[in-house]
Amino acid sequence: MTIVPEGAIADLLTREAAFAAVEQVFADMASGSARNFPVVREAMPTEDALYGFKGGVAPGILGLKAGGYWPHNLDKNGLINHQSTVFLFDPETGRVSAMVGGNLLTALRTAAASAVSIKHLARLDAKVLGMIGAGHQAKFQLRAALEQRDFDKVIAWNLHPEMLPGLAEVAAETGIPFEPVDLSGMIAADAIITITSSFAPTLLAEHVSPGTHIACMGTDTIGKQEVEAALLGKATVFCDEVAQSTTLGEAQHAVSNGLISADAITQIGAVINGTHPGRTSNREITLFDGTGVGLQDLAVAGSIVDVAVANGTATIVPI
Amino acid sequence: MTIVPEGAIADLLTREAAFAAVEQVFADMASGSARNFPVVREAMPTEDALYGFKGGVAPGILGLKAGGYWPHNLDKNGLINHQSTVFLFDPETGRVSAMVGGNLLTALRTAAASAVSIKHLARLDAKVLGMIGAGHQAKFQLRAALEQRDFDKVIAWNLHPEMLPGLAEVAAETGIPFEPVDLSGMIAADAIITITSSFAPTLLAEHVSPGTHIACMGTDTIGKQEVEAALLGKATVFCDEVAQSTTLGEAQHAVSNGLISADAITQIGAVINGTHPGRTSNREITLFDGTGVGLQDLAVAGSIVDVAVANGTATIVPI
Repeated sequence: MTIVPEGAIADLLTREAAFAAVEQVFADMASGSARNFPVVREAMPTEDALYGFKGGVAPGILGLKAGGYWPHNLDKNGLINHQSTVFLFDPETGRVSAMVGGNLLTALRTAAASAVSIKHLARLDAKVLGMIGAGHQAKFQLRAALEQRDFDKVIAWNLHPEMLPGLAEVAAETGIPFEPVDLSGMIAADAIITITSSFAPTLLAEHVSPGTHIACMGTDTIGKQEVEAALLGKATVFCDEVAQSTTLGEAQHAVSNGLISADAITQIGAVINGTHPGRTSNREITLFDGTGVGLQDLAVAGSIVDVAVANGTATIVPI
Repeated sequence: MTIVPEGAIADLLTREAAFAAVEQVFADMASGSARNFPVVREAMPTEDALYGFKGGVAPGILGLKAGGYWPHNLDKNGLINHQSTVFLFDPETGRVSAMVGGNLLTALRTAAASAVSIKHLARLDAKVLGMIGAGHQAKFQLRAALEQRDFDKVIAWNLHPEMLPGLAEVAAETGIPFEPVDLSGMIAADAIITITSSFAPTLLAEHVSPGTHIACMGTDTIGKQEVEAALLGKATVFCDEVAQSTTLGEAQHAVSNGLISADAITQIGAVINGTHPGRTSNREITLFDGTGVGLQDLAVAGSIVDVAVANGTATIVPI
């Protein structure tokens, strides 16, 4: 089997490759040829940690991402708090085929998901990109999003404004002007990414102009919420996977409030496949609920195994 | 991390080590310090295969066994049909720490479970061991069971009698007489192991003498059944894990028929820990429902990682 260590991912995995793998697997999920398994997520008896598995199967892809959140890692061990590893299996034989470090990969596949949503749902003439959140993951989101449209300005809000310069640096990499704004300033955005760990709505319906595309990327747990539920009632809602979206994604609140029904939420893969038209007017608000599915990890990991073998950064071990 | 390949397991893993690890983790499950996670088990879109994950956490142990059943492997690829791999994680940091081949290990940990039940539940003067089933796994069961009491005879029944000589060879290894019997001949047994893939009862209540211990090791799926449900009504019933026992183990039928209640089933760890007396008379029928839990695999895998590193059969790879 092939081992691709965490330290090799930065040189191996491009944003383009992550984007292509995520777009393809979203398409396969919508066409029915790819399927995520039930997620296992368990509280650990020590370290206040969460641990679990996200598995799935798609054409040529089988396996799981295992790992979780160890909140004291950085302080106690000098390790990052999110730790995950992807294990791939041969769908023809059931034998383990590869292990791929999953930490940077998770950041890149999450960023690829919102970028895929922008490609397929934002107005073609979108110029102003709004960012809600300025943490570690927000930088990955911003880099990937900027490649999808000819944006000429980034505006951003964060609960802790002192973190905004980190995002400004990313915008500066591409020479695009950056401006911190109040939440009401988001009215100027043509596309907005929310990437926070909030448990109460931050972005309200009144902050969003007609024609905007919103990618809600932070809500992956029951109780979390980034945007006002009424915003989903006004929007055409898309997601990665409906079952997750309605139970632990951003749509959980609008569905439980009766503002939208699960039937009204479309997997973005249907837009990629052309079986749903996606955006149909320049006044329509589109909203993508990105909850994060195991197949994103598996598809992206699978896309780099052969490259890692070819360039000698992988280790081949007997199993 | 440490890789212990499948081919190294036969030399590394003794029956004694598997027994000790399984006995300890059963004890930890009963005391509440160890816990299995929900099992993921999914039908694959190709190869008629089943695939899934069994995870758990115990003191010093965290991880999962991943793999499944590929029924065409032997014919198509020359590989065994059951394929599994154990992945261990560091409970202090969440980082992957070891990968251990899981095929032979599964056979040994399953045999260890029935042997643990014989140690703690069979009469001390048990002399005749009965075997129902004579497949690959039955041989492992027989070897482990024979070490638990001073048995002086093995009697056996199998749906396909032509397979019985394979079991006879195992008995011959230890010099113990072996005799094929009809099911009614099981009345002579003091301990019985059932290890079949049956979907209808084979061993009936009338085939079992008072004072017998029965280890039902074959039923791990809804619908499977090895013994008449009435036998559980007459027995004191033990299991590895109550939730599995009542839903997909041998007890599923007696519970759904109302012959026993889930409350009447005792985790064998309670007997190991001394919080349940176990067998209380020489006329009592005891029955162990061994469904197979992920922690058995993790505990046994964990017990050999250090040995494999010390004797050079493991590969250490960066991750």
